[in-house]
Amino acid sequence: MLDTRIKSLKKTLSEKNIDALLVSNYYNILYLSGFKTLVDNEREAWLLVTKNAEYLFTDYRYTSATHDISFITPEKRLIKHLQEITEDKKIKTLGFEAEDIKFNEYQSFKKYLENTNLVETRGLIMKQREVKDDMEISKIKAACEISDRCFEEVVKEIRVGKTEKEIAFRIEFWLKEKGYDLAFYPIVAVDENSSIPHYDTRGGNNKKVINGSVILIDFGAKHDDYLSDMTRMVFMGDPGTEIVKQYESLLASQIKTLKHLKVGLDLKATDAFCRKEMKNKGLNDYSHSTGHGVGLEIHEYPKMSFLSEDKVKAGQIITVEPGFYLKAKWGMRVEDTALVTDNGAVALTKFSKDLLII
Amino acid sequence: MLDTRIKSLKKTLSEKNIDALLVSNYYNILYLSGFKTLVDNEREAWLLVTKNAEYLFTDYRYTSATHDISFITPEKRLIKHLQEITEDKKIKTLGFEAEDIKFNEYQSFKKYLENTNLVETRGLIMKQREVKDDMEISKIKAACEISDRCFEEVVKEIRVGKTEKEIAFRIEFWLKEKGYDLAFYPIVAVDENSSIPHYDTRGGNNKKVINGSVILIDFGAKHDDYLSDMTRMVFMGDPGTEIVKQYESLLASQIKTLKHLKVGLDLKATDAFCRKEMKNKGLNDYSHSTGHGVGLEIHEYPKMSFLSEDKVKAGQIITVEPGFYLKAKWGMRVEDTALVTDNGAVALTKFSKDLLII
Repeated sequence: MLDTRIKSLKKTLSEKNIDALLVSNYYNILYLSGFKTLVDNEREAWLLVTKNAEYLFTDYRYTSATHDISFITPEKRLIKHLQEITEDKKIKTLGFEAEDIKFNEYQSFKKYLENTNLVETRGLIMKQREVKDDMEISKIKAACEISDRCFEEVVKEIRVGKTEKEIAFRIEFWLKEKGYDLAFYPIVAVDENSSIPHYDTRGGNNKKVINGSVILIDFGAKHDDYLSDMTRMVFMGDPGTEIVKQYESLLASQIKTLKHLKVGLDLKATDAFCRKEMKNKGLNDYSHSTGHGVGLEIHEYPKMSFLSEDKVKAGQIITVEPGFYLKAKWGMRVEDTALVTDNGAVALTKFSKDLLII
Repeated sequence: MLDTRIKSLKKTLSEKNIDALLVSNYYNILYLSGFKTLVDNEREAWLLVTKNAEYLFTDYRYTSATHDISFITPEKRLIKHLQEITEDKKIKTLGFEAEDIKFNEYQSFKKYLENTNLVETRGLIMKQREVKDDMEISKIKAACEISDRCFEEVVKEIRVGKTEKEIAFRIEFWLKEKGYDLAFYPIVAVDENSSIPHYDTRGGNNKKVINGSVILIDFGAKHDDYLSDMTRMVFMGDPGTEIVKQYESLLASQIKTLKHLKVGLDLKATDAFCRKEMKNKGLNDYSHSTGHGVGLEIHEYPKMSFLSEDKVKAGQIITVEPGFYLKAKWGMRVEDTALVTDNGAVALTKFSKDLLII
């Protein structure tokens, strides 16, 4: 599977006349090699993909049973490895990830690789990651099933008096106790807080659930490096006809957009489609995008927004998450992680979206 | 307090003849403004510090009661804000953070701010963050006290049969249940695994504690945005004279290095001092640095390594963490987070370092 990924990247490089690509992005390295370091935000590994070989660079803290590693040491830093390999393998054109490399790193490459033509690349591997392979699909399916089970258990424990942070912590605990992880810190937003599209539960005012509360829960699971993302609404007691009608309208728009997602369409158009459905039903427009790809990271290609230039393709895994937000009152969002197939989109998060009154 | 930080930065900018600095690093923005977004790895906020004003840019998801915000919208993106401000305020020289800005971001600034001279800066704010102010010291002290209490509770529950992941999870749970957070994912390494300096407990083989086990626990707490970092050794039953002797030698080296830390010394020299102490006692050298600054991030300035060019200064908060690693056998490390004062260094992590046999 990884061989296929590398091969596909090499084809792209060859089309662009790039002799080798230096991969710096943590998730791109993981995607291509299966190798990862302790944290994703310190430069601890690099991957060089040349026409005939791959070189994985890291330091002695990371010895690996399954990877050939070229060790970075104080005496032989990355740049020295690169100088040797570019010379030995006659690499004239070296691509780098312009969206990942820091300015100072670029300066250093320019200074020390003076005989190499540095070429900026953008989104080469991100674009490849947009369409998931079978291994990825099965891993994301598993993450979605885990979040379904988690939600089912956690929702049973919500009652009057519970705080947002208690519910968020319960989700976190449920996942981690079983060896899974959070895809991101859960958004649990009660009443007015649900009217803030990206409410920060950790930093927020920790509202308590009361009778009649509107509760928005947006969370995801991480398992085997892959993520899920879902949002469900929970109502504490009868929410009244206005809210029920709004919820049903929102849900109908979300379901219709899922059905609308067909291979070949512009994602920009599907974003507009969803907003139009919402508008037709009298719901406010939302300030976020209608959806985003999910995989190793929570926000991947493709984007389903008015800025998107992508098309719907089989194998994309993408969220569909319209919402509406009534300032200082309440808000609602419904979100699934969905797989695009040749026969349309299938929600992988399967927890019921029927009106959930507890 | 934040005013003092901004004022100090402005002084630096003026010395360097930089009219304004665009701050992109999440932690630098937090340090200077107190503002933070949901995640630290997506560009959601920017801070522009000019001679007479500060501008905080973010999008409509983040409204703030305490911050004046210049909103980034699809119609008015960051670059448009910058174009207007640089023109209005006659900013000729605009600094950027070369260690944080991505190559593609730099390209965009260069293209759209054609009348502005872009100047790369390195570590300006990181260097300022090296010396902690009173508010920071009290927050880090609090984080250290929390980790002391956490360790005390968690160690009571370690017994034969417990796995590394169970112990790590217990630490995580203890902290999060109380509304604190992990400073980083704990390293809990049993027996052979303790011989790997940066053992990955999450990805590892999850060894069980047995009679005679050597258990290394390296963890930290996060509270109010600030971190602590400590490592303690735990022995399950009598470890035997060889191990006791090694532990006592390691501990003596660590304590001696803490005592050696005096304002004005080169950190390179203190690193060498610790290694020499270890060598004199017959312990192997370690492949990591002797210590690192701790604050909003787990690895900050100053570095205490053979590459360090920093000096010991009052107000630095730095770890002291020598270790030795006997391949495929066991390893040990002892680590405190310490505050440098004019009267020497004081460990802020105070849990006893006496031989801990359980």
